[in-house]
Amino acid sequence: MRSSAGQQPLKVAVAGLGTVGGGVVKLLQANAEALALRTGRGIAITAVSDRFRRDRGFSVDGYAWYDDAVAMTQQADADVVVELIGGAEGAARQVCEAAIARGRHVVTANKALIAHHGTALAAAAEGAGVVLAYEAAVAGAIPIIKALREGLVGNRRTRVFGILNGTCNYILTQMRESGREFETVLAEAQALGYAEADPGFDVDGIDAAHKLAILATVAFGCTLEFGALHIEGIRHVSPVDIAFAEELGYRIKLLGIASLTDGGVERRVHPCMLRRGAPVAHVEGVFNAVVAEGDFADRIVQEGRGAGERPTASAVVADIADIACGRHAPTFGIPVERLQALPALPMSRHRGCYYVRLMLLDQPGVLADVTAILRDDAVSMEAVLQRARAPGEAVPVVMTTHEAEEASMVQALRRIGELPSSVEPPRMIRIEPF
Amino acid sequence: MRSSAGQQPLKVAVAGLGTVGGGVVKLLQANAEALALRTGRGIAITAVSDRFRRDRGFSVDGYAWYDDAVAMTQQADADVVVELIGGAEGAARQVCEAAIARGRHVVTANKALIAHHGTALAAAAEGAGVVLAYEAAVAGAIPIIKALREGLVGNRRTRVFGILNGTCNYILTQMRESGREFETVLAEAQALGYAEADPGFDVDGIDAAHKLAILATVAFGCTLEFGALHIEGIRHVSPVDIAFAEELGYRIKLLGIASLTDGGVERRVHPCMLRRGAPVAHVEGVFNAVVAEGDFADRIVQEGRGAGERPTASAVVADIADIACGRHAPTFGIPVERLQALPALPMSRHRGCYYVRLMLLDQPGVLADVTAILRDDAVSMEAVLQRARAPGEAVPVVMTTHEAEEASMVQALRRIGELPSSVEPPRMIRIEPF
Repeated sequence: MRSSAGQQPLKVAVAGLGTVGGGVVKLLQANAEALALRTGRGIAITAVSDRFRRDRGFSVDGYAWYDDAVAMTQQADADVVVELIGGAEGAARQVCEAAIARGRHVVTANKALIAHHGTALAAAAEGAGVVLAYEAAVAGAIPIIKALREGLVGNRRTRVFGILNGTCNYILTQMRESGREFETVLAEAQALGYAEADPGFDVDGIDAAHKLAILATVAFGCTLEFGALHIEGIRHVSPVDIAFAEELGYRIKLLGIASLTDGGVERRVHPCMLRRGAPVAHVEGVFNAVVAEGDFADRIVQEGRGAGERPTASAVVADIADIACGRHAPTFGIPVERLQALPALPMSRHRGCYYVRLMLLDQPGVLADVTAILRDDAVSMEAVLQRARAPGEAVPVVMTTHEAEEASMVQALRRIGELPSSVEPPRMIRIEPF
Repeated sequence: MRSSAGQQPLKVAVAGLGTVGGGVVKLLQANAEALALRTGRGIAITAVSDRFRRDRGFSVDGYAWYDDAVAMTQQADADVVVELIGGAEGAARQVCEAAIARGRHVVTANKALIAHHGTALAAAAEGAGVVLAYEAAVAGAIPIIKALREGLVGNRRTRVFGILNGTCNYILTQMRESGREFETVLAEAQALGYAEADPGFDVDGIDAAHKLAILATVAFGCTLEFGALHIEGIRHVSPVDIAFAEELGYRIKLLGIASLTDGGVERRVHPCMLRRGAPVAHVEGVFNAVVAEGDFADRIVQEGRGAGERPTASAVVADIADIACGRHAPTFGIPVERLQALPALPMSRHRGCYYVRLMLLDQPGVLADVTAILRDDAVSMEAVLQRARAPGEAVPVVMTTHEAEEASMVQALRRIGELPSSVEPPRMIRIEPF
């Protein structure tokens, strides 16, 4: 609360002038006056780095230029190093380590780096008395780290889940609206720039998993264990499943879900069926949405843009402004050495309801075989949907189950898949009760 | 970032042990250990006050008891005084003034107090170097003040709007679902405890207006001018309008809307028609939702519980924890003396689209009279809906307009209301394009 009049502007070095780095420079230039008023001291870029010098649509006059981000980190006159290079290793990691070693605050949008090396980086930062901030790493412009760590500080947080990857949500939305196949929509998304040339990070769920691992640690105070996550992407979601979901009153979303249960922490990323009125079921296209649940606040839902130059820059600058104002919290909400190695609930022990689609030859007795397997594996059916009957041809048979254990479900599906009348591998999508 | 090990717990005195005060005590008792870990020092209640000593379901052993909140504020050993008495004047105001004068931080959930006296209180607090925090005053558990002031700190905020009163949203939801009249649903809400015995504060839009005035000041840095708000409640919303809204693809919500326009700041609370896919149209029952728009973040939507013992306590404790951690921001995001007296756009100059319902005797030429009036007042119709025709009887005639100026619309409706064939005052609901 001391007046900051007379304080020097906070000096910032920006490592990486790609999409997000460019957005950060543009924001700090465009809204400099407002930021000076709001932070009481202003934020001044002193240095920038990138591998190439070229026209990026903004001026870098007056900033020290470095081709090498690590050299900038070691040499530039800066209070804060903003790491926007990306990737869990290499220059991004070196910049953050070097900045902390030099006693500089670090702001990053790098979810892979935090998910894989967040514990070590946070320990180094807390030891050095500097900030390691990463609001932009999760859900873009949505201030979800701040909401969990500060807004819900008084709560026992029991669950956090959401739509954490805009590319997947865009693809699923397009598939639903147009009835087209995954591969077709992916190719279009790549042409439009909504998906990377190498789309695996997004469509295989890795990017969402990085974000979920971070959210779980901030929410529950558990250690960051990326290897403990169950991760599935959206490649196997088919138009026929999307159509059945609609018919059953569900919508298919790729969710990251972290729950604190009696048996341990459950962290999983996979396609889900949500009833259409569920809190994030209406969130379409490239938008992200995160739901946080606590014992006093009940449920908070936040939606917004999860990626892109300007929304991500908004979150990066929020972290910089917190540093400018001296607003600090422990990296993951509690001192990093106090994070608890809570047991990770294995996916095999997950309990839930399931949507199952079989492709069966319509032969006498086939449904009896299927139901016998389910009974033997203690999976109880809620409903069965069978459409066109054409003797000798494969027809989709759709079932929803009552709550069952994942291990039982997987075993039943394996056995059903081995039936001679099963002509395609059974498909399963988990139904979430939110 | 200095370690706070060895720091004393933050000492808190709670003024008012009603619903919210009780919730705060319960939270601080239930989650004391987690809060100590997260704040690095803990939060200790030292004193409480209320007019009556009675069993409230929690222990006050070990807290100094005061019957008089002002006396507590002046005498108790506390770093923070938490004002949960309520009301813009009287004890609530005196407690806050006395606490600041004594150099104590103030946390309050009191929207009326902040909306009416926030400027003077903030000036006193900033002068004394103490915090005046009020997260719980707006939208309950949703950390919207933090999101605007810190999360969107880098943005030029251009609009903030939302469902700010759970009682009204509950009543409108019930009216839509059951087709019943306002008065009937209100009586039921009162019986259930969702509405006060004196419901005017809620249903006449005053409570939502208090919150909107605060949001506008935090978002735009404009002076807090409660008198500049246009305020309408929901008493005139009728089942027939709700049914027509559904038919036209809209949902009726009481919104608070603040916009930064070229002509000044627009701040208005009134029933709105929202297309069903709009960002807050799906928010039903007692829930609140706030949308904030900025030039970099684009649009952030937050939903959650806007009232009640536990959600409000969650927000109060977030403010207390910020104080415990030394996380400070200027009361309204910028120093209070820098708030700008931006011109307030009068409602008469508002431009928008309108839903209009007339009750007309079905006589020859009546529609020609109506359309001539609209033409003369430069209001252009988009669509007309006229149902049953029964010569000599009053029938509803529903119209939607293209964008028009409020003053023209009001004049046209007054003239239409004066037509001999108009048997009820025309009803108008603004259509919002979100």
